[in-house]
Amino acid sequence: MQSVGTASDEPTRLADIIAPMFGGQSGWSQRLENGVQAELVAGADAQDDCAVFALDGPMEIVVGSDYVRGPKFQLYELGYLSNYDIGYYLAMANLSDIAAMGALPIALLTVVRYPRSLPDDDFTALMEGIRDACRQVGAPNVGGDIGSAERIILSASAVGIVERGGSLLRTGARAGDRLCVTGPTGVAASAQRYFGGLGPGTTKLPPGEEEALISAWRRPQALVREGRCLSTSGVVTSCQDTSDGLKAGVQSLAAASGVGFVVEESALPVADIVAEVARLTDGDLTSVLLGDSVDFQLVFTVGEDAAPQLSKIFADAGLQFFDIGYATEEREVRLRRADGREEELPGVPWRHAT
Amino acid sequence: MQSVGTASDEPTRLADIIAPMFGGQSGWSQRLENGVQAELVAGADAQDDCAVFALDGPMEIVVGSDYVRGPKFQLYELGYLSNYDIGYYLAMANLSDIAAMGALPIALLTVVRYPRSLPDDDFTALMEGIRDACRQVGAPNVGGDIGSAERIILSASAVGIVERGGSLLRTGARAGDRLCVTGPTGVAASAQRYFGGLGPGTTKLPPGEEEALISAWRRPQALVREGRCLSTSGVVTSCQDTSDGLKAGVQSLAAASGVGFVVEESALPVADIVAEVARLTDGDLTSVLLGDSVDFQLVFTVGEDAAPQLSKIFADAGLQFFDIGYATEEREVRLRRADGREEELPGVPWRHAT
Repeated sequence: MQSVGTASDEPTRLADIIAPMFGGQSGWSQRLENGVQAELVAGADAQDDCAVFALDGPMEIVVGSDYVRGPKFQLYELGYLSNYDIGYYLAMANLSDIAAMGALPIALLTVVRYPRSLPDDDFTALMEGIRDACRQVGAPNVGGDIGSAERIILSASAVGIVERGGSLLRTGARAGDRLCVTGPTGVAASAQRYFGGLGPGTTKLPPGEEEALISAWRRPQALVREGRCLSTSGVVTSCQDTSDGLKAGVQSLAAASGVGFVVEESALPVADIVAEVARLTDGDLTSVLLGDSVDFQLVFTVGEDAAPQLSKIFADAGLQFFDIGYATEEREVRLRRADGREEELPGVPWRHAT
Repeated sequence: MQSVGTASDEPTRLADIIAPMFGGQSGWSQRLENGVQAELVAGADAQDDCAVFALDGPMEIVVGSDYVRGPKFQLYELGYLSNYDIGYYLAMANLSDIAAMGALPIALLTVVRYPRSLPDDDFTALMEGIRDACRQVGAPNVGGDIGSAERIILSASAVGIVERGGSLLRTGARAGDRLCVTGPTGVAASAQRYFGGLGPGTTKLPPGEEEALISAWRRPQALVREGRCLSTSGVVTSCQDTSDGLKAGVQSLAAASGVGFVVEESALPVADIVAEVARLTDGDLTSVLLGDSVDFQLVFTVGEDAAPQLSKIFADAGLQFFDIGYATEEREVRLRRADGREEELPGVPWRHAT
């Protein structure tokens, strides 16, 4: 029971206010007069990337919403991201939630509010960024809400379809499952660290490497093909994207599934540019790989016996993933260092601060 | 072609930037490996209350998004609306878009951002308002995005289901159709006019009447039952809600359907409280009935011969609507005064200003 005047943080509000208020939704259903039915498979209480409805016929739809802090983007304010870039990012951040459910995106809805003084060219560029990100994943932007506000406000929702029973939830990991990730993490965080933190005169990267770094923000990718492979394989037991960081993703799969994980430090995929920025900025590499970084990779679990089968499916599709650890009965998430020591995961997960 | 630095208004941006960018979407489709398909029936280019997808099986889904100007609500700032009230309003504004499509709401997704200083009690009240509005129409709030921002930012999306071919678009009105509305308009505008404009010492209404007036904002209703009757009747040719005002609604049906309308002044339904506020504030009653007022009534057209059948369906359901005019081949929207004179519709439609 919160007392009058208290302003708790977001995780507390999710746990103490939202969860009790929206608990027990799953199983809710609604039916049209012609017998057509929609049943809620995963609602607000599931706290998954998206909500899931089973519909008549062999399909489910997934829906999710993400607000993106427009000019709050540090790299936008510093001039590294254009209006086109933040439009592109808004779309991909939302489409990534659909990918993480194993679904095929069919629609994006966008809310774009802006100061009256925003020039038409900037508005056009922002909308083109949205359009092009949608094209990249093959789903249309079907509308939403545009209009003025005192500053840029960006929010969106995305809709996807998936075969019945095919949605990838966070709840299915079992002890013994392999823990995997689709690619290197920490790139977006490294870009923030590098561009946001380096003062004038400090050692800089060559232009080509700077470009590679900033592209994590300029052209993030919703991993729709990877998500579809995970879903259609039938062997993946849980999944989410790493938009809150790899540590937060692993912790969330652990909490939702009621398991723990051992993450092997030596198995974490490392992008060269991330290692280089860690060196340049005296950062701890493993903390960067695990901490808050909106990379939109997918972190997932697969039954131990089925892991080779999944590797083959990915290889056949020209894709890859990395096995970084395994699920345990003991409900704790630990890092195994190269020297065998086990300790808590380093790195700060995203706390949804402004 | 806009020139550099120009900042045009929202209608211009919709027409000149959005429409060409997202034109030609209808007919787009996406298919899963199991053959399940989603086809876009009405996308951004349709500029309807919602986008519509036909899915496998005898159903369509509709999706829409609405941003609500939280503390920009004049009546919230003046203390007439609580946090509970704006939560309730946010949900109903979005659910009304589903009702206007003739669909049954199955989900609301909400984006609620707030200053860190917002007390837990206020946050809880806001979320309870959302929850209770969802309960009122029988659809769950399935999640979304909460977190901090420099001020309250409210946005939401809603999803509904409807029988295949049953979505009520804006495009089907034909010359000769009757033009109808589900109830009196101008109540919300009258509340703003009364509470926002009356200075101290001015003649006031009795408390019971003030309560009736403010309830247009505190407890707006998404007319889901009415929308369902319109859809399942099979005789309604076009529909939208009056959230931009009755005049804007009629103009929009006219433009989308390629017809004109004659609105009979003497047939417009008038709530006593609206007439009283118009008298108290020296306002022109017809302008208030037609102008910008977020009443969430449904304005629609029905074939002339089928109007009695629809009246019976409504009467059997304990509902009603008002016949206020008819569609014409001539593409002009006109008001016929009680004395027979015809003129342009008075009243200012919503221009999506801040």
